[in-house]
Amino acid sequence: MAPNTSSLRTDRPAVLFDLDGTLLDSVYQHVLAWKEALESAGIPLSIWRIHRRIGMSGGLFVRALVRETGRELTAGEADRLRKLHEEAYGRRVREVKPLPGAQRLLEVLTDLGVPWAIATSSSDVTAAASLTMLDVPRDVPVITRDKVAYAKPNPDLFLAAAEALGRAITDSFVVGDSVWDMLAAQRAQALGIGVLSGGYGREELETAGAYRSYDDPLDLLEHLDELGIRTR
Amino acid sequence: MAPNTSSLRTDRPAVLFDLDGTLLDSVYQHVLAWKEALESAGIPLSIWRIHRRIGMSGGLFVRALVRETGRELTAGEADRLRKLHEEAYGRRVREVKPLPGAQRLLEVLTDLGVPWAIATSSSDVTAAASLTMLDVPRDVPVITRDKVAYAKPNPDLFLAAAEALGRAITDSFVVGDSVWDMLAAQRAQALGIGVLSGGYGREELETAGAYRSYDDPLDLLEHLDELGIRTR
Repeated sequence: MAPNTSSLRTDRPAVLFDLDGTLLDSVYQHVLAWKEALESAGIPLSIWRIHRRIGMSGGLFVRALVRETGRELTAGEADRLRKLHEEAYGRRVREVKPLPGAQRLLEVLTDLGVPWAIATSSSDVTAAASLTMLDVPRDVPVITRDKVAYAKPNPDLFLAAAEALGRAITDSFVVGDSVWDMLAAQRAQALGIGVLSGGYGREELETAGAYRSYDDPLDLLEHLDELGIRTR
Repeated sequence: MAPNTSSLRTDRPAVLFDLDGTLLDSVYQHVLAWKEALESAGIPLSIWRIHRRIGMSGGLFVRALVRETGRELTAGEADRLRKLHEEAYGRRVREVKPLPGAQRLLEVLTDLGVPWAIATSSSDVTAAASLTMLDVPRDVPVITRDKVAYAKPNPDLFLAAAEALGRAITDSFVVGDSVWDMLAAQRAQALGIGVLSGGYGREELETAGAYRSYDDPLDLLEHLDELGIRTR
């Protein structure tokens, strides 16, 4: 029997967006905020190692940190570290801006009737400021790490985002700047679209499974046809 | 006739080091210093695009910038931008530290009788503070962009460094964190050794021609045998 494809609008797949480094130029501020938090806790760690962990779940981040510095952290210390990071990021958030094309891309998708959502490893608090910056309409699903059991590279955030849109995850694209987004996309059985705007290289994203990669949201907007999304 | 290899000590190749991101954890400070300089000149540019240009010659950096922002800069504006960057970096230099293993690696090479030198796209002024931080002995050749016609990815800096050591460039390794180091190494006919400590990915460095890559100076030190350098 042929599969029933009559209800599928393959030209209107769901699009599930990561936030930091994907829609906002905020990765480097997060990196230096973590550096500041770690220094003030007396934990030395090279900055590039922090960069390579951005976007993954805070719990895993701290665990990887323990491994890389050979230092044990109590649950209390880990919590304090996350709080220090949140404060340090708060002091830098004024410098953060949407990436080129981010708002326009979201508007175009809305106009085309392409359902989209946000799925971020950030907390509700940190995400709130970002959503204001992007003028995200109130009816857009926003899945933060406060809403799921496990953040990236586990698939939960993206699975919940697709569900909130009422779409199959296999009929969704995941757009993200980090290896953790691409790995989570694979685990969720979605195709991952990489953007370079978080400072990972194209080869890194493709090695992690990116189906396609673009410079930033503007570059993605200019190539929507490559995703089979028909613009009018 | 067999080539004369009697004078070659292939276990003691020359090693030509880049500075920022290779021996010092300074790339992210340079990136944000450029961001600050560009903002104050009214030029918007995503931070990852700045990161991807760090380590290349300042002249080429500004040229690439013009291309990416579609904005023309006069020679005077370009000079002012470089000056703004130098000042903004100066305000951050207190945060900069040597990378793990950097000083020890240089000491071990010296003890082994492996000749080494520094070759950086930075100016004399910016490099001076870095050399103090690393306790670089005064008799080590330091080639800055003030000493050659063209900085990286042109081969001049590395060619001059090998010459200053009295060694053939083909008997030298280039150690660097950026694509521009690896491209310059290829042009110079040296083998490039990539380090990830500047925030480029391993795949990016290998695509640009890295013969081998390591996490940082400490990781390189622990694998000197892979370069055929016999430690005692």
